[in-house]
Amino acid sequence: MAELGTLVLLRHGQSTWNAENLFTGWVDVPLSELGEQEARRGGELLVDAGLLPDVVHTSLLRRAISTANLALDVADRHWIDVRRDWRLNERHYGALQGKDKKQTLAEFGEEQFMLWRRSYDTPPPPIEPGAEYGQDADPRYAGLGAELPATECLKDVVARLLPYWESSIVPDLRAGRTVLVAAHGNSLRALVKHLDGISDADIAGLNIPTGIPLRYDLADSDGDLRPTNPGGTYLDPDEAAKAAAAVASQGR
Amino acid sequence: MAELGTLVLLRHGQSTWNAENLFTGWVDVPLSELGEQEARRGGELLVDAGLLPDVVHTSLLRRAISTANLALDVADRHWIDVRRDWRLNERHYGALQGKDKKQTLAEFGEEQFMLWRRSYDTPPPPIEPGAEYGQDADPRYAGLGAELPATECLKDVVARLLPYWESSIVPDLRAGRTVLVAAHGNSLRALVKHLDGISDADIAGLNIPTGIPLRYDLADSDGDLRPTNPGGTYLDPDEAAKAAAAVASQGR
Repeated sequence: MAELGTLVLLRHGQSTWNAENLFTGWVDVPLSELGEQEARRGGELLVDAGLLPDVVHTSLLRRAISTANLALDVADRHWIDVRRDWRLNERHYGALQGKDKKQTLAEFGEEQFMLWRRSYDTPPPPIEPGAEYGQDADPRYAGLGAELPATECLKDVVARLLPYWESSIVPDLRAGRTVLVAAHGNSLRALVKHLDGISDADIAGLNIPTGIPLRYDLADSDGDLRPTNPGGTYLDPDEAAKAAAAVASQGR
Repeated sequence: MAELGTLVLLRHGQSTWNAENLFTGWVDVPLSELGEQEARRGGELLVDAGLLPDVVHTSLLRRAISTANLALDVADRHWIDVRRDWRLNERHYGALQGKDKKQTLAEFGEEQFMLWRRSYDTPPPPIEPGAEYGQDADPRYAGLGAELPATECLKDVVARLLPYWESSIVPDLRAGRTVLVAAHGNSLRALVKHLDGISDADIAGLNIPTGIPLRYDLADSDGDLRPTNPGGTYLDPDEAAKAAAAVASQGR
Protein backbone atom coordinates (compact mmCIF):
# COMPACT_ATOMS: atom_id res chain seq x y z
CA MET A 1 0.00 0.00 0.00
CA ALA A 2 1.19 3.52 -0.79
CA GLU A 3 2.27 5.76 2.08
CA LEU A 4 -0.60 7.97 3.22
CA GLY A 5 -0.59 11.50 1.90
CA THR A 6 -0.63 14.70 3.94
CA LEU A 7 -3.72 16.82 4.54
CA VAL A 8 -3.47 20.61 4.55
CA LEU A 9 -6.44 22.72 5.60
CA LEU A 10 -6.64 26.38 4.63
CA ARG A 11 -9.40 28.68 5.82
CA HIS A 12 -10.07 31.54 3.40
CA GLY A 13 -8.94 35.03 4.35
CA GLN A 14 -11.11 38.03 5.11
CA SER A 15 -14.08 38.58 2.80
CA THR A 16 -15.75 41.91 2.11
CA TRP A 17 -18.64 40.87 4.37
CA ASN A 18 -16.33 39.79 7.19
CA ALA A 19 -14.97 43.33 6.96
CA GLU A 20 -18.52 44.75 7.10
CA ASN A 21 -19.56 42.42 9.96
CA LEU A 22 -22.43 40.73 8.08
CA PHE A 23 -23.51 37.10 8.35
CA THR A 24 -22.38 35.48 5.12
CA GLY A 25 -23.00 31.72 5.00
CA TRP A 26 -23.64 30.70 1.39
CA VAL A 27 -23.72 34.26 0.02
CA ASP A 28 -20.90 34.35 -2.52
CA VAL A 29 -18.94 37.45 -1.55
CA PRO A 30 -15.35 38.07 -2.69
CA LEU A 31 -12.19 38.34 -0.61
CA SER A 32 -11.24 41.78 0.63
CA GLU A 33 -7.79 43.09 -0.22
CA LEU A 34 -6.61 41.88 3.19
CA GLY A 35 -8.11 38.47 2.41
CA GLU A 36 -6.13 38.30 -0.84
CA GLN A 37 -2.96 39.14 1.07
CA GLU A 38 -3.73 36.39 3.59
CA ALA A 39 -4.17 33.91 0.74
CA ARG A 40 -0.80 34.80 -0.81
CA ARG A 41 0.85 34.55 2.60
CA GLY A 42 -0.69 31.08 2.93
CA GLY A 43 1.02 30.14 -0.32
CA GLU A 44 4.37 31.42 0.98
CA LEU A 45 3.96 29.31 4.11
CA LEU A 46 3.38 26.22 1.94
CA VAL A 47 6.58 26.98 0.03
CA ASP A 48 8.59 27.63 3.21
CA ALA A 49 7.42 24.30 4.64
CA GLY A 50 8.11 22.46 1.36
CA LEU A 51 4.51 21.27 1.56
CA LEU A 52 3.42 21.35 -2.05
CA PRO A 53 -0.13 20.17 -2.80
CA ASP A 54 -0.82 17.64 -5.56
CA VAL A 55 -4.55 18.29 -5.59
CA VAL A 56 -6.87 20.95 -4.18
CA HIS A 57 -10.44 20.57 -2.98
CA THR A 58 -12.54 23.73 -2.60
CA SER A 59 -16.10 24.71 -1.82
CA LEU A 60 -18.25 26.33 -4.51
CA LEU A 61 -17.81 29.75 -2.92
CA ARG A 62 -15.62 32.45 -4.42
CA ARG A 63 -13.75 33.31 -1.21
CA ALA A 64 -12.42 29.75 -0.88
CA ILE A 65 -11.78 29.34 -4.62
CA SER A 66 -9.87 32.64 -4.83
CA THR A 67 -7.89 31.75 -1.70
CA ALA A 68 -6.83 28.47 -3.32
CA ASN A 69 -6.01 30.16 -6.64
CA LEU A 70 -3.89 32.87 -5.02
CA ALA A 71 -2.08 30.56 -2.60
CA LEU A 72 -1.35 27.95 -5.26
CA ASP A 73 -0.13 30.57 -7.73
CA VAL A 74 2.37 31.84 -5.16
CA ALA A 75 3.44 28.25 -4.43
CA ASP A 76 3.88 27.53 -8.16
CA ARG A 77 1.21 24.82 -7.90
CA HIS A 78 -1.49 26.55 -9.95
CA TRP A 79 -1.45 23.56 -12.34
CA ILE A 80 -2.54 20.81 -9.92
CA ASP A 81 -5.82 18.89 -10.08
CA VAL A 82 -8.90 20.73 -8.81
CA ARG A 83 -12.05 19.36 -7.20
CA ARG A 84 -14.96 21.45 -6.01
CA ASP A 85 -18.03 20.47 -4.03
CA TRP A 86 -20.88 22.21 -2.23
CA ARG A 87 -20.25 19.88 0.72
CA LEU A 88 -17.19 21.99 1.58
CA ASN A 89 -19.28 25.19 1.67
CA GLU A 90 -19.56 27.36 4.76
CA ARG A 91 -22.43 26.62 7.13
CA HIS A 92 -25.69 27.94 5.68
CA TYR A 93 -26.71 30.77 7.98
CA GLY A 94 -30.43 30.64 7.16
CA ALA A 95 -32.46 33.81 7.62
CA LEU A 96 -29.44 35.56 9.15
CA GLN A 97 -27.58 35.65 5.80
CA GLY A 98 -26.98 39.26 4.83
CA LYS A 99 -27.86 40.59 8.30
CA ASP A 100 -25.62 42.83 10.36
CA LYS A 101 -24.13 40.94 13.30
CA LYS A 102 -24.33 43.85 15.72
CA GLN A 103 -27.97 44.58 14.85
CA THR A 104 -28.84 40.89 15.16
CA LEU A 105 -27.23 40.78 18.60
CA ALA A 106 -29.20 43.88 19.66
CA GLU A 107 -32.45 42.50 18.24
CA PHE A 108 -32.31 38.96 19.62
CA GLY A 109 -30.10 39.27 22.70
CA GLU A 110 -26.80 37.60 23.54
CA GLU A 111 -28.16 34.20 24.53
CA GLN A 112 -30.04 33.59 21.28
CA PHE A 113 -27.21 35.13 19.26
CA MET A 114 -24.57 32.87 20.78
CA LEU A 115 -26.81 29.83 20.40
CA TRP A 116 -27.07 30.46 16.64
CA ARG A 117 -23.36 31.14 16.37
CA ARG A 118 -21.94 28.40 18.50
CA SER A 119 -24.42 25.71 19.52
CA TYR A 120 -23.81 22.37 17.85
CA ASP A 121 -27.38 21.55 16.95
CA THR A 122 -29.51 24.72 16.90
CA PRO A 123 -29.74 26.21 13.42
CA PRO A 124 -30.87 29.81 12.78
CA PRO A 125 -34.38 30.22 11.33
CA PRO A 126 -34.54 28.97 7.71
CA ILE A 127 -34.21 31.46 4.89
CA GLU A 128 -37.45 32.07 2.96
CA PRO A 129 -37.73 30.75 -0.63
CA GLY A 130 -36.87 33.56 -3.04
CA ALA A 131 -35.19 35.66 -0.34
CA GLU A 132 -32.53 38.13 -1.54
CA TYR A 133 -29.67 36.19 0.02
CA GLY A 134 -31.00 32.70 -0.61
CA GLN A 135 -29.58 30.18 -3.09
CA ASP A 136 -32.70 28.51 -4.51
CA ALA A 137 -32.18 30.07 -7.96
CA ASP A 138 -28.39 29.61 -7.99
CA PRO A 139 -27.38 27.37 -10.93
CA ARG A 140 -24.47 25.83 -9.02
CA TYR A 141 -26.92 24.16 -6.65
CA ALA A 142 -29.51 23.24 -9.27
CA GLY A 143 -28.72 19.53 -8.94
CA LEU A 144 -29.19 19.40 -5.16
CA GLY A 145 -32.97 19.20 -5.01
CA ALA A 146 -34.17 18.56 -1.47
CA GLU A 147 -30.57 18.49 -0.20
CA LEU A 148 -30.27 22.27 -0.65
CA PRO A 149 -30.25 23.59 2.91
CA ALA A 150 -32.34 26.58 4.04
CA THR A 151 -30.31 26.79 7.25
CA GLU A 152 -27.70 24.68 9.04
CA CYS A 153 -26.20 24.09 12.44
CA LEU A 154 -22.69 22.65 12.76
CA LYS A 155 -24.15 19.17 13.18
CA ASP A 156 -25.77 19.52 9.74
CA VAL A 157 -22.42 20.58 8.28
CA VAL A 158 -20.72 17.50 9.73
CA ALA A 159 -23.47 15.31 8.23
CA ARG A 160 -23.16 16.72 4.72
CA LEU A 161 -19.37 17.09 4.78
CA LEU A 162 -18.39 13.54 5.83
CA PRO A 163 -19.69 11.78 2.69
CA TYR A 164 -17.41 14.01 0.61
CA TRP A 165 -14.48 13.42 2.95
CA GLU A 166 -14.90 9.67 2.57
CA SER A 167 -15.69 9.55 -1.15
CA SER A 168 -13.31 12.19 -2.50
CA ILE A 169 -10.64 13.39 -0.08
CA VAL A 170 -9.71 10.11 1.60
CA PRO A 171 -9.00 8.38 -1.76
CA ASP A 172 -6.55 11.15 -2.66
CA LEU A 173 -4.83 10.73 0.72
CA ARG A 174 -4.71 6.95 0.34
CA ALA A 175 -3.06 7.50 -3.05
CA GLY A 176 -0.23 9.27 -1.19
CA ARG A 177 -1.06 12.76 -2.42
CA THR A 178 -0.60 16.03 -0.57
CA VAL A 179 -4.15 17.35 -0.41
CA LEU A 180 -5.07 21.00 0.11
CA VAL A 181 -8.60 21.69 1.32
CA ALA A 182 -9.47 25.37 0.88
CA ALA A 183 -12.70 26.03 2.71
CA HIS A 184 -14.46 27.87 5.54
CA GLY A 185 -14.50 28.36 9.30
CA ASN A 186 -17.33 25.93 9.88
CA SER A 187 -16.72 23.33 7.19
CA LEU A 188 -13.14 23.04 8.46
CA ARG A 189 -14.32 22.90 12.09
CA ALA A 190 -16.61 20.05 11.03
CA LEU A 191 -13.70 18.20 9.45
CA VAL A 192 -11.37 18.80 12.40
CA LYS A 193 -14.10 17.62 14.80
CA HIS A 194 -14.19 14.34 12.90
CA LEU A 195 -10.40 13.98 12.55
CA ASP A 196 -9.57 14.78 16.16
CA GLY A 197 -12.68 13.16 17.64
CA ILE A 198 -13.75 16.39 19.37
CA SER A 199 -17.00 16.20 21.36
CA ASP A 200 -20.16 18.11 20.41
CA ALA A 201 -19.61 20.36 23.44
CA ASP A 202 -15.89 21.02 22.98
CA ILE A 203 -16.08 21.96 19.29
CA ALA A 204 -17.75 25.27 20.32
CA GLY A 205 -14.40 26.44 21.69
CA LEU A 206 -12.38 25.63 18.58
CA ASN A 207 -11.54 28.35 16.05
CA ILE A 208 -9.39 27.92 12.98
CA PRO A 209 -7.46 31.07 12.05
CA THR A 210 -7.67 32.39 8.48
CA GLY A 211 -4.88 32.04 5.94
CA ILE A 212 -2.56 29.80 7.98
CA PRO A 213 -2.22 26.29 6.53
CA LEU A 214 -2.91 23.54 9.08
CA ARG A 215 -1.09 20.26 8.40
CA TYR A 216 -2.40 16.85 9.43
CA ASP A 217 -0.20 13.76 9.20
CA LEU A 218 -2.35 10.66 9.05
CA ALA A 219 -2.31 6.98 9.88
CA ASP A 220 -4.82 4.27 9.15
CA SER A 221 -6.71 3.22 12.25
CA ASP A 222 -9.07 0.32 11.54
CA GLY A 223 -9.97 1.74 8.15
CA ASP A 224 -10.29 5.36 9.34
CA LEU A 225 -7.65 8.02 8.78
CA ARG A 226 -6.55 9.51 12.10
CA PRO A 227 -3.98 12.24 12.80
CA THR A 228 -0.59 11.23 14.17
CA ASN A 229 -0.32 14.90 15.19
CA PRO A 230 -3.65 15.44 16.98
CA GLY A 231 -4.94 18.98 16.54
CA GLY A 232 -2.73 19.36 13.49
CA THR A 233 0.30 21.60 13.05
CA TYR A 234 -0.01 25.20 11.92
CA LEU A 235 2.66 26.24 9.45
CA ASP A 236 2.95 29.54 11.33
CA PRO A 237 2.32 28.53 14.97
CA ASP A 238 3.10 31.99 16.42
CA GLU A 239 0.62 33.69 14.14
CA ALA A 240 -1.98 30.98 14.83
CA ALA A 241 -1.58 31.43 18.60
CA LYS A 242 -1.97 35.19 18.22
CA ALA A 243 -5.13 34.73 16.14
CA ALA A 244 -6.56 32.32 18.73
CA ALA A 245 -5.87 34.81 21.53
CA ALA A 246 -7.55 37.58 19.54
CA VAL A 247 -10.69 35.45 19.02
CA ALA A 248 -10.79 34.56 22.72
CA SER A 249 -10.62 38.19 23.80
CA GLN A 250 -13.29 39.11 21.19
CA GLY A 251 -15.63 36.68 22.93
CA ARG A 252 -15.36 38.61 26.20
CA MET B 1 -29.08 11.11 -26.82
CA ALA B 2 -28.50 14.46 -25.11
CA GLU B 3 -28.17 17.55 -27.26
CA LEU B 4 -24.54 18.29 -28.02
CA GLY B 5 -22.91 20.96 -25.90
CA THR B 6 -21.23 24.12 -27.12
CA LEU B 7 -17.46 24.56 -27.38
CA VAL B 8 -15.87 27.89 -26.47
CA LEU B 9 -12.19 28.49 -27.16
CA LEU B 10 -10.31 31.24 -25.35
CA ARG B 11 -6.71 32.15 -26.12
CA HIS B 12 -4.90 33.67 -23.13
CA GLY B 13 -4.16 37.37 -23.14
CA GLN B 14 -0.76 39.04 -23.31
CA SER B 15 1.95 37.52 -21.12
CA THR B 16 4.97 39.37 -19.75
CA TRP B 17 7.13 37.63 -22.38
CA ASN B 18 4.77 38.51 -25.24
CA ALA B 19 5.27 42.09 -24.07
CA GLU B 20 9.07 41.62 -24.08
CA ASN B 21 9.04 39.84 -27.47
CA LEU B 22 10.62 36.58 -26.24
CA PHE B 23 9.86 33.06 -27.44
CA THR B 24 7.87 31.47 -24.62
CA GLY B 25 6.59 27.97 -25.47
CA TRP B 26 6.45 25.96 -22.25
CA VAL B 27 8.14 28.60 -20.07
CA ASP B 28 5.56 29.39 -17.41
CA VAL B 29 5.38 33.19 -17.47
CA PRO B 30 2.47 35.17 -15.99
CA LEU B 31 -0.03 37.40 -17.75
CA SER B 32 0.87 41.07 -18.07
CA GLU B 33 -1.57 43.64 -16.72
CA LEU B 34 -2.96 43.99 -20.24
CA GLY B 35 -3.35 40.20 -20.40
CA GLU B 36 -5.35 40.24 -17.16
CA GLN B 37 -7.62 42.93 -18.62
CA GLU B 38 -8.10 40.84 -21.76
CA ALA B 39 -9.09 37.85 -19.63
CA ARG B 40 -11.70 39.85 -17.70
CA ARG B 41 -13.05 41.26 -20.96
CA GLY B 42 -13.35 37.67 -22.22
CA GLY B 43 -15.49 36.92 -19.17
CA GLU B 44 -17.73 39.93 -19.91
CA LEU B 45 -18.20 38.70 -23.48
CA LEU B 46 -19.32 35.30 -22.15
CA VAL B 47 -21.88 37.02 -19.93
CA ASP B 48 -23.12 39.29 -22.73
CA ALA B 49 -23.59 36.25 -24.98
CA GLY B 50 -25.30 34.25 -22.20
CA LEU B 51 -22.71 31.57 -22.91
CA LEU B 52 -21.94 30.24 -19.45
CA PRO B 53 -19.45 27.35 -19.25
CA ASP B 54 -20.24 24.24 -17.22
CA VAL B 55 -16.66 22.97 -17.27
CA VAL B 56 -13.27 24.44 -18.13
CA HIS B 57 -10.25 22.69 -19.61
CA THR B 58 -6.87 24.44 -19.34
CA SER B 59 -3.25 23.72 -20.11
CA LEU B 60 -0.75 23.43 -17.23
CA LEU B 61 0.60 26.91 -17.92
CA ARG B 62 -0.11 29.87 -15.68
CA ARG B 63 -1.13 32.28 -18.45
CA ALA B 64 -3.98 29.99 -19.57
CA ILE B 65 -4.96 29.06 -16.00
CA SER B 66 -5.07 32.71 -14.89
CA THR B 67 -7.03 33.66 -17.99
CA ALA B 68 -9.63 31.01 -17.15
CA ASN B 69 -9.74 32.03 -13.48
CA LEU B 70 -10.19 35.72 -14.26
CA ALA B 71 -12.74 35.23 -17.06
CA LEU B 72 -14.80 32.74 -15.05
CA ASP B 73 -14.76 34.93 -11.97
CA VAL B 74 -16.18 37.84 -13.98
CA ALA B 75 -18.80 35.50 -15.49
CA ASP B 76 -19.76 34.21 -12.02
CA ARG B 77 -18.71 30.70 -13.11
CA HIS B 78 -15.64 30.35 -10.86
CA TRP B 79 -17.26 27.28 -9.27
CA ILE B 80 -17.48 25.03 -12.34
CA ASP B 81 -15.54 21.80 -12.85
CA VAL B 82 -11.88 22.17 -13.82
CA ARG B 83 -9.70 19.88 -15.91
CA ARG B 84 -6.07 20.52 -16.75
CA ASP B 85 -3.72 18.69 -19.08
CA TRP B 86 -0.29 19.23 -20.60
CA ARG B 87 -1.77 18.27 -23.99
CA LEU B 88 -3.38 21.74 -24.09
CA ASN B 89 0.00 23.45 -23.56
CA GLU B 90 1.46 25.91 -26.05
CA ARG B 91 3.77 24.46 -28.70
CA HIS B 92 7.18 23.67 -27.19
CA TYR B 93 9.56 26.11 -28.79
CA GLY B 94 12.70 24.02 -28.28
CA ALA B 95 16.04 25.81 -28.08
CA LEU B 96 14.33 29.10 -28.95
CA GLN B 97 12.53 29.27 -25.58
CA GLY B 98 13.69 32.37 -23.72
CA LYS B 99 15.32 33.90 -26.83
CA ASP B 100 14.57 37.38 -28.15
CA LYS B 101 12.53 37.19 -31.35
CA LYS B 102 14.26 40.13 -33.02
CA GLN B 103 17.74 38.80 -32.23
CA THR B 104 16.75 35.34 -33.46
CA LEU B 105 15.49 36.85 -36.71
CA ALA B 106 18.77 38.77 -37.14
CA GLU B 107 20.88 35.71 -36.30
CA PHE B 108 19.14 33.12 -38.48
CA GLY B 109 17.54 35.19 -41.24
CA GLU B 110 13.92 35.57 -42.24
CA GLU B 111 13.53 32.29 -44.11
CA GLN B 112 14.66 30.09 -41.22
CA PHE B 113 12.83 32.25 -38.72
CA MET B 114 9.50 31.98 -40.57
CA LEU B 115 9.99 28.25 -41.07
CA TRP B 116 10.27 27.76 -37.30
CA ARG B 117 7.32 30.03 -36.63
CA ARG B 118 4.91 28.93 -39.29
CA SER B 119 5.85 25.72 -41.07
CA TYR B 120 3.61 22.78 -40.22
CA ASP B 121 6.30 20.17 -39.76
CA THR B 122 9.68 21.81 -39.09
CA PRO B 123 10.36 22.12 -35.34
CA PRO B 124 13.02 24.46 -33.93
CA PRO B 125 16.22 22.77 -32.67
CA PRO B 126 15.54 20.78 -29.49
CA ILE B 127 16.26 22.36 -26.13
CA GLU B 128 19.28 20.84 -24.31
CA PRO B 129 18.68 18.73 -21.18
CA GLY B 130 19.10 20.94 -18.11
CA ALA B 131 18.81 24.16 -20.11
CA GLU B 132 17.60 27.22 -18.18
CA TYR B 133 14.26 27.36 -19.98
CA GLY B 134 13.70 23.60 -20.29
CA GLN B 135 11.10 21.57 -18.40
CA ASP B 136 12.94 18.33 -17.63
CA ALA B 137 13.01 19.06 -13.88
CA ASP B 138 9.49 20.47 -13.71
CA PRO B 139 7.34 18.37 -11.34
CA ARG B 140 4.16 18.94 -13.39
CA TYR B 141 5.68 16.92 -16.24
CA ALA B 142 7.33 14.26 -14.09
CA GLY B 143 4.87 11.59 -15.24
CA LEU B 144 5.44 12.17 -18.96
CA GLY B 145 8.67 10.22 -19.38
CA ALA B 146 9.64 9.95 -23.05
CA GLU B 147 6.54 11.93 -24.08
CA LEU B 148 8.07 15.15 -22.70
CA PRO B 149 8.91 17.14 -25.84
CA ALA B 150 12.24 18.92 -26.34
CA THR B 151 10.76 20.85 -29.28
CA GLU B 152 7.58 20.75 -31.35
CA CYS B 153 6.19 21.78 -34.70
CA LEU B 154 2.44 22.33 -35.12
CA LYS B 155 2.09 18.80 -36.47
CA ASP B 156 3.45 17.50 -33.16
CA VAL B 157 0.94 19.64 -31.27
CA VAL B 158 -1.94 18.21 -33.30
CA ALA B 159 -0.69 14.68 -32.57
CA ARG B 160 -0.50 15.18 -28.79
CA LEU B 161 -3.62 17.32 -28.52
CA LEU B 162 -6.11 15.07 -30.33
CA PRO B 163 -6.02 12.20 -27.80
CA TYR B 164 -7.07 14.67 -25.10
CA TRP B 165 -9.77 16.15 -27.32
CA GLU B 166 -11.23 12.69 -27.89
CA SER B 167 -10.84 11.31 -24.36
CA SER B 168 -11.75 14.35 -22.27
CA ILE B 169 -13.35 17.25 -24.15
CA VAL B 170 -15.63 15.33 -26.51
CA PRO B 171 -17.30 13.40 -23.64
CA ASP B 172 -18.16 16.71 -21.93
CA LEU B 173 -19.66 17.98 -25.19
CA ARG B 174 -21.60 14.77 -25.73
CA ALA B 175 -23.01 15.21 -22.22
CA GLY B 176 -24.51 18.50 -23.42
CA ARG B 177 -22.18 20.74 -21.44
CA THR B 178 -20.90 24.18 -22.42
CA VAL B 179 -17.14 23.62 -22.48
CA LEU B 180 -14.55 26.38 -22.16
CA VAL B 181 -11.05 25.54 -23.39
CA ALA B 182 -8.55 28.13 -22.14
CA ALA B 183 -5.28 27.57 -23.95
CA HIS B 184 -2.70 28.96 -26.36
CA GLY B 185 -2.20 30.26 -29.88
CA ASN B 186 -0.85 26.99 -31.22
CA SER B 187 -2.79 24.43 -29.20
CA LEU B 188 -5.99 26.22 -30.26
CA ARG B 189 -4.81 26.41 -33.89
CA ALA B 190 -4.22 22.65 -33.72
CA LEU B 191 -7.76 22.11 -32.42
CA VAL B 192 -9.32 24.45 -34.99
CA LYS B 193 -7.35 22.71 -37.76
CA HIS B 194 -8.96 19.45 -36.73
CA LEU B 195 -12.46 20.87 -36.24
CA ASP B 196 -12.59 22.83 -39.50
CA GLY B 197 -10.56 20.33 -41.52
CA ILE B 198 -7.97 22.95 -42.48
CA SER B 199 -5.08 21.72 -44.66
CA ASP B 200 -1.46 21.58 -43.49
CA ALA B 201 -0.69 24.45 -45.85
CA ASP B 202 -3.64 26.70 -44.99
CA ILE B 203 -3.25 26.50 -41.22
CA ALA B 204 -0.15 28.73 -41.51
CA GLY B 205 -2.42 31.67 -42.36
CA LEU B 206 -4.77 31.21 -39.41
CA ASN B 207 -4.35 33.30 -36.27
CA ILE B 208 -6.63 33.24 -33.25
CA PRO B 209 -6.86 36.59 -31.45
CA THR B 210 -6.28 36.74 -27.70
CA GLY B 211 -9.04 37.19 -25.14
CA ILE B 212 -12.03 36.90 -27.52
CA PRO B 213 -14.10 33.76 -26.93
CA LEU B 214 -14.66 31.72 -30.12
CA ARG B 215 -17.86 29.68 -30.13
CA TYR B 216 -18.29 26.41 -32.04
CA ASP B 217 -21.71 24.81 -32.40
CA LEU B 218 -21.33 21.13 -33.15
CA ALA B 219 -23.09 18.26 -34.81
CA ASP B 220 -22.26 14.58 -34.91
CA SER B 221 -20.91 13.53 -38.29
CA ASP B 222 -20.28 9.77 -38.45
CA GLY B 223 -19.03 9.75 -34.87
CA ASP B 224 -16.92 12.91 -35.20
CA LEU B 225 -17.98 16.29 -33.85
CA ARG B 226 -18.02 18.86 -36.65
CA PRO B 227 -18.92 22.57 -36.51
CA THR B 228 -22.28 23.68 -37.86
CA ASN B 229 -20.70 27.15 -37.95
CA PRO B 230 -17.39 26.41 -39.76
CA GLY B 231 -14.61 28.70 -38.55
CA GLY B 232 -16.54 29.33 -35.37
CA THR B 233 -18.15 32.58 -34.23
CA TYR B 234 -16.22 35.20 -32.29
CA LEU B 235 -18.19 36.77 -29.47
CA ASP B 236 -16.74 40.15 -30.49
CA PRO B 237 -16.44 39.86 -34.30
CA ASP B 238 -15.37 43.49 -34.83
CA GLU B 239 -12.52 43.18 -32.34
CA ALA B 240 -11.51 39.81 -33.84
CA ALA B 241 -11.39 41.30 -37.35
CA LYS B 242 -9.26 44.19 -36.10
CA ALA B 243 -6.86 41.77 -34.39
CA ALA B 244 -6.60 39.66 -37.56
CA ALA B 245 -5.81 42.75 -39.64
CA ALA B 246 -3.15 43.81 -37.13
CA VAL B 247 -1.46 40.38 -37.32
CA ALA B 248 -1.57 40.46 -41.13
CA SER B 249 0.10 43.88 -41.28
CA GLN B 250 2.69 42.74 -38.69
CA GLY B 251 3.71 39.99 -41.11
CA ARG B 252 4.61 42.52 -43.81
